Amino acid sequence: MKATVYHGAHDVRLQEVPDPHILDPRDAIVRVTRAAICGSDLWFYRGISDLAPGARTGHEFIGVVQEVGTEVQSVRPGEPVISPFVSSDGTCEFCREGLQTSCVHVGYFTGERGAQAEFVRVPYADGTLVKMPDAIAHDDAKRNASVALCDVMATGHHGVVGARTTPGSTVVIVGDGAVGLCAVLSAAREVRAERIIEVGHNPKRLEIAKRFGATDTFDSHDANVQADILELTSGGALHVVEAVGNQESLDLAVGVARPGGTVCFVGVPHNVKNPPLEAILFGNLSLRGAVCPARAYLPQLIASLEAGRIDPSPVLDLTLPLDKVADGYAAMDERRAIKVLLTVS
Amino acid sequence: MKATVYHGAHDVRLQEVPDPHILDPRDAIVRVTRAAICGSDLWFYRGISDLAPGARTGHEFIGVVQEVGTEVQSVRPGEPVISPFVSSDGTCEFCREGLQTSCVHVGYFTGERGAQAEFVRVPYADGTLVKMPDAIAHDDAKRNASVALCDVMATGHHGVVGARTTPGSTVVIVGDGAVGLCAVLSAAREVRAERIIEVGHNPKRLEIAKRFGATDTFDSHDANVQADILELTSGGALHVVEAVGNQESLDLAVGVARPGGTVCFVGVPHNVKNPPLEAILFGNLSLRGAVCPARAYLPQLIASLEAGRIDPSPVLDLTLPLDKVADGYAAMDERRAIKVLLTVS
Repeated sequence: MKATVYHGAHDVRLQEVPDPHILDPRDAIVRVTRAAICGSDLWFYRGISDLAPGARTGHEFIGVVQEVGTEVQSVRPGEPVISPFVSSDGTCEFCREGLQTSCVHVGYFTGERGAQAEFVRVPYADGTLVKMPDAIAHDDAKRNASVALCDVMATGHHGVVGARTTPGSTVVIVGDGAVGLCAVLSAAREVRAERIIEVGHNPKRLEIAKRFGATDTFDSHDANVQADILELTSGGALHVVEAVGNQESLDLAVGVARPGGTVCFVGVPHNVKNPPLEAILFGNLSLRGAVCPARAYLPQLIASLEAGRIDPSPVLDLTLPLDKVADGYAAMDERRAIKVLLTVS
Repeated sequence: MKATVYHGAHDVRLQEVPDPHILDPRDAIVRVTRAAICGSDLWFYRGISDLAPGARTGHEFIGVVQEVGTEVQSVRPGEPVISPFVSSDGTCEFCREGLQTSCVHVGYFTGERGAQAEFVRVPYADGTLVKMPDAIAHDDAKRNASVALCDVMATGHHGVVGARTTPGSTVVIVGDGAVGLCAVLSAAREVRAERIIEVGHNPKRLEIAKRFGATDTFDSHDANVQADILELTSGGALHVVEAVGNQESLDLAVGVARPGGTVCFVGVPHNVKNPPLEAILFGNLSLRGAVCPARAYLPQLIASLEAGRIDPSPVLDLTLPLDKVADGYAAMDERRAIKVLLTVS
C-alpha cells in the first residue's frame, strides 16, 4: 500500500510500504477514505520536534473497516468508521473515566501505523473506532467534515470544557489555527458561552472565527491585545483556551485570565523557558494541560455534526489527493492552508 | 518603634524607625505581640529574589489593636487580633468570593509595613483582621500557635484544598518545610484524606509529619522516590501539593500525579526553566497556583485551633525575642529551625 513517510525536515513522501495485517485478535484494518494533516504535524515537519526518519505520519482518518480480528465485536467489515487520534482499550480505569489518552494500552497513530495512508491497523478496535451514522456516511460534505472530529474539533471542544467554560460565560481563545477555530465553534454551539473572544493573527481566519460564533476578535500582533482584552472583560476571563503552544501565547493566555480562572492548553508547548508561574500563583489560576481523549467526545460531536449543530468544514480549506500529501504539508507550513483534507479512496 | 529592616543578602537588622500612624479612616494600628519568620523570607535573605534595601520585613503577626481609623467597625482598641499575611478590603468581588489575595485593594506587609516590628499599620482593618477568641488569647500555647494561622497553616490548607483533596482520598505533599507540614495537618484533620504521603529530606521534620498524620514518608533525596510513590499509589495520586518551589520539586509533584489529577503549588517557584508542560498535557493534569487568601480560612482554622483539632505549634520550633530576629533568620537559613516565632510584647 501507499503511506506517507517522514524522511527529515520538510521532506515527507508518499511511498510503497508493506500492507498492514491483523496482529492481535482485537485489531481491525481500516481502509482509509479521508485523512488530514494536523497543525501538530508541522512541529516535526519543521524540525522543531524529533521524529525518527522512516516513521509514518498522520493520525486523523475516517474509513471503512476492511478486516477485523476474531475478538472484535463492535464493528464489521464494510462498515464506515471514525477514529480518534489515539487507540485505547475501552475497558481500563482511565477509559471508563473518559480519559482514553491515559489508557493503559494507549497507542498513537505513528511509527508503522501512520494514517496518511491507504490502510491503518487499529489496535483495540472496540475501544477505539466509532461507527459513522448513515446520515454522515452518505452525505459528502458531512463525511468530509467528520475528519475534523478525529482531532481538531474534539481538541478544541476539550479545551473549552477543560477551561471549565459554562453556558453564558466569557471565554478567551488564543490561536486561530484549526484547533482554536474549532474551540470557538464548541464554545458557541456545544457549550453556549455568551462572549467568545478569539485572538489570532490572520484576518481570513478571524473571519471564520466570527462565522463560528466569536463575538470579539483581536489581532495577536497588536501590542495592546492583553490590555484591550482585560478592559473588555473588566479584568480578565475565568475561562481561557491556549491553542498555539509557545511562550508568547501562554503568557497572553495567563495574562487575560481572571483571578481564580482556568487556562487550558491543548497542544505540546514548545520553547517555553519562562513559564508564567508567578502570575499563576498570584492569580490563583489553574493551568490545565489537556491532550484530548477524542474517543470520549465522538458520540456527542458526531450527533452534533449529523444534526447540523456544528460544521467544522471551513477549517478544512484545502483538499488534495493522498499522492499530493507533500504539497499539503508545504501549503500548511507556508500558511496557505489552515488544514488539508486528504482524499484517499 | 523597632522594626526589622533588610539591608542586603544575609543582613537584616532590628532598628529604630518612625512609628506608624493612621493614614486612612479604614486603617488600624496593631501592637504586635508575636510575629514569625517565614520560609519565603529566605528567598530575599539568600539574595535569590530581589528586595529593595531599606524595606521592612515580616508578614505574619498577631497583636492587640492600638488605634483605629474613624470608619473601622469590626475591631476596637484593646482587642486581640490575628492577621492574614495580606490586607484586603473585604467588600470587592474577589473578597466576596474568598479570593482576598486578588482584592482590588490588596496590600502586602512589606515596605513600610513589615510585621517583624513593634507596630504595624493595617489598611482596610475591617476586611483584614480577625478577632482572636478569648480561649486562644488567654492560652499561651494556643496564642503562640495562632501565629502559624497567619500564613503557613492557612497556606498548607489552601494547597490541600487547591489540590481538590477529598475526604478519604490519597494526597502527596512534596516539601517538609512549615507549609508542607501544615499541609499534612490539614489533610489529616481538616480535609480528612485517608492516605497522606509526605516527601521531605529531614528525618526530624518527617517525624513531625507523622505526628501530624502522614501515613507514609519518603526521602526526597532517594533516587527512586518517584517510582516508589507511583508503586505505592498504583500509578499516582489525584491530589498533589508542591510546597518547595524549585525545578526538582515541581518535576516530582507532576511525576507522581495520576492522570486527570491536580498539582497545587503554594509558593513562588524559583529557577524553573523547564516546566513539565508535556507531562501536564499528556496526563490531563491541572497545575494550580495558589497564593493563599488566608483571610478566607481564618474563621475555620481559628475554630479548629480553639477546639484542639489542629495544633501547628511543632513547626514553630525556635522562639526568640524580636531583638534576636537576625539570629532567627540565620537559624532558618542554616536549617537549624523550621520556623522562628518572635516574641515582641
